[in-house]
Amino acid sequence: MARSLDDLKPRIALVEIAHDFHARGWMAGTAGNLSARADDGHFWITASGKPKGRLEENDFLLVRVQDAEVVERGRAEDKPSAETMIHRAIYELFPDARACLHGHSVDACRAADRAKKGARSLRLPPIEMLKGFDIWQQDPKVDLPLFENLLDVAQIARQIETRFRKKKPPLSALLIRGHGPTVWGASLQVAYNRFECLEFVFNYVTRGAK
Amino acid sequence: MARSLDDLKPRIALVEIAHDFHARGWMAGTAGNLSARADDGHFWITASGKPKGRLEENDFLLVRVQDAEVVERGRAEDKPSAETMIHRAIYELFPDARACLHGHSVDACRAADRAKKGARSLRLPPIEMLKGFDIWQQDPKVDLPLFENLLDVAQIARQIETRFRKKKPPLSALLIRGHGPTVWGASLQVAYNRFECLEFVFNYVTRGAK
Amino acid sequence: MARSLDDLKPRIALVEIAHDFHARGWMAGTAGNLSARADDGHFWITASGKPKGRLEENDFLLVRVQDAEVVERGRAEDKPSAETMIHRAIYELFPDARACLHGHSVDACRAADRAKKGARSLRLPPIEMLKGFDIWQQDPKVDLPLFENLLDVAQIARQIETRFRKKKPPLSALLIRGHGPTVWGASLQVAYNRFECLEFVFNYVTRGAK
Amino acid sequence: MARSLDDLKPRIALVEIAHDFHARGWMAGTAGNLSARADDGHFWITASGKPKGRLEENDFLLVRVQDAEVVERGRAEDKPSAETMIHRAIYELFPDARACLHGHSVDACRAADRAKKGARSLRLPPIEMLKGFDIWQQDPKVDLPLFENLLDVAQIARQIETRFRKKKPPLSALLIRGHGPTVWGASLQVAYNRFECLEFVFNYVTRGAK
Repeated sequence: MARSLDDLKPRIALVEIAHDFHARGWMAGTAGNLSARADDGHFWITASGKPKGRLEENDFLLVRVQDAEVVERGRAEDKPSAETMIHRAIYELFPDARACLHGHSVDACRAADRAKKGARSLRLPPIEMLKGFDIWQQDPKVDLPLFENLLDVAQIARQIETRFRKKKPPLSALLIRGHGPTVWGASLQVAYNRFECLEFVFNYVTRGAK
Repeated sequence: MARSLDDLKPRIALVEIAHDFHARGWMAGTAGNLSARADDGHFWITASGKPKGRLEENDFLLVRVQDAEVVERGRAEDKPSAETMIHRAIYELFPDARACLHGHSVDACRAADRAKKGARSLRLPPIEMLKGFDIWQQDPKVDLPLFENLLDVAQIARQIETRFRKKKPPLSALLIRGHGPTVWGASLQVAYNRFECLEFVFNYVTRGAK
Repeated sequence: MARSLDDLKPRIALVEIAHDFHARGWMAGTAGNLSARADDGHFWITASGKPKGRLEENDFLLVRVQDAEVVERGRAEDKPSAETMIHRAIYELFPDARACLHGHSVDACRAADRAKKGARSLRLPPIEMLKGFDIWQQDPKVDLPLFENLLDVAQIARQIETRFRKKKPPLSALLIRGHGPTVWGASLQVAYNRFECLEFVFNYVTRGAK
Repeated sequence: MARSLDDLKPRIALVEIAHDFHARGWMAGTAGNLSARADDGHFWITASGKPKGRLEENDFLLVRVQDAEVVERGRAEDKPSAETMIHRAIYELFPDARACLHGHSVDACRAADRAKKGARSLRLPPIEMLKGFDIWQQDPKVDLPLFENLLDVAQIARQIETRFRKKKPPLSALLIRGHGPTVWGASLQVAYNRFECLEFVFNYVTRGAK
């Protein structure tokens, strides 16, 4: 085992994350998509419709940050994930982001259900695990950005861009209702660690369900 | 690992699914049964009474779709699963079905409990995961066909045939109360993916339990 | 992997079960004990105080059914499990029992909590999974024998003997409140299968918690 | 596999525990820290900020019990865990402690929530699993020491020292609210076993949630 996901080739690291998240139930069926920045202007993202428990190094496309144009693909027939526009927005908004992970989890969906319809954020509980997002405060008040789920994913991406351009989120994560979290970080390992921390928080929130 | 379950010999793929589903608690004891179409007129199905965590390639019988006649068996003493009649009905009703997976899960049983006695379907929540069943709508209203559990399995099979001949179900799955889901698909990988998606939905439903 | 636990040497099969049950959280710390009949008059049982995730073939003692006398031990310093008297009672009461498995689970403890204090049984829900205990009825009414937990294990063993001599239980299992299930069967594989089925039932019971 | 964690070199045993606890969700992200006494005056403790699922033998620092001075480190840039002061306090207070394990779990956080704000202990349920802490009583009344979570970890360590100097705790464990358990033992295997037992108890407590 590599000492860090960052010691691996980015696509190899994403394959490892895909198998791991699938085994934990965060990527059922072909759900979820994973990306890593290849260079300042491009990122690798999972091809659409792949079962994540069987993902391979070839199952990625190289996409341009500027306009989401596909510039390389592992297999001729592959199409980029339907949520490429969200990843693109993240890489454009956050130049330091090197990886972006999107999964689907029951805890995330149930946590989102606790926010009123139309709410733009979900207040997270002030537990120790928030330190995983570099939040070092006594009793922090952290609002996770929340977006409604829309069939038109490009529209969700535009909402994310608009909202985050006005105001940066308090942590490198967002949640789409009835769908799941998107987490990014300055490295593959950091994004992976934070995804785990956020799922811990969602599980905490839902386990207190009345 | 194969890139897809469909790259494997069907019985080998079913063995892999059996070990996987057993490890997740969806095939406790000898519960559950798995089948794959061998050709238009026949399908392989698990022999009765096998612990699924130890299933082997020989633990299958070849059965004729037309009349459920056993035409080949891995071991002389093996009998086809008690639920062969349900698989047979699925292959006859849906010529495109190439695989059919039936498991038992606590989430499936608890989800079914939320439907009134005698209800013929369970309304699924409109979460993103329904896209795993190729349901691409904003806020879809999907009713999973629900059947009462009967000691006489052949009678359940007849009810399935009667009901589905009148009206095709909105997704390639059904649920038997107090028992578990049956999921089919145009390939082994698709059936596997959809089984996972449906269990995700059941878990979502039960996690909101009051 | 062996096709069946019964194809293994009994102590090897018990080691495999111990590692499996530990991984599932049914044998936390050094909890639980496992036995298999060696011949009509003797059974192998786990030594006391062994972490079950690390159990080895030497961690068993050979005990006489008649009087629980230890006649052989893998290591000179080993003592038989504190619950040897319960296993002894089972082998004496049920000449067909070839294996007896006792674990501790949260679901079992929480299921028992649903019975009134002093209740002598827990009514099981009439779900399909009861077929794992060879109960083939429509809507079966099955009462799992329930015993209070006592510091003096020998006294629990005597209560089991007394009660089961008067009336055989409806399934090859019993439950000790605040503690866990004991399951036996005509073979190692059968006992293992039934343990899994019973835990499924307990999970179903507790997941409906109000 | 070694027969016991105590048959391994202490840091190798801690690496094994880290991978195990990470896989169970008790060490999400870089959460948690693990230590083992090297000799009477020193202990090895995990370096700060390491993802526990990838921990290696080099990821430890040797720390003096007397004053928490670092006397050796696996990598020049490594810093001791932020919670080194708590481990130091445990080794000073309990000369028999050979290992100390601190994790974060949802069950632990939710169990702590059941105690009133400011409560100094959490009454544990009198279940069989308490025997894992060498508590051999009928219906034991055991109070797990509870501490409020503070951003200033050194202050938590001082509170632990002050309170435990006055009165030894009834079991070798404590709980920090919104954070997680710390468990120690006379050997690595004993500490590991007890951590598992305590998590079982927390899960039992939370599963009865109203």
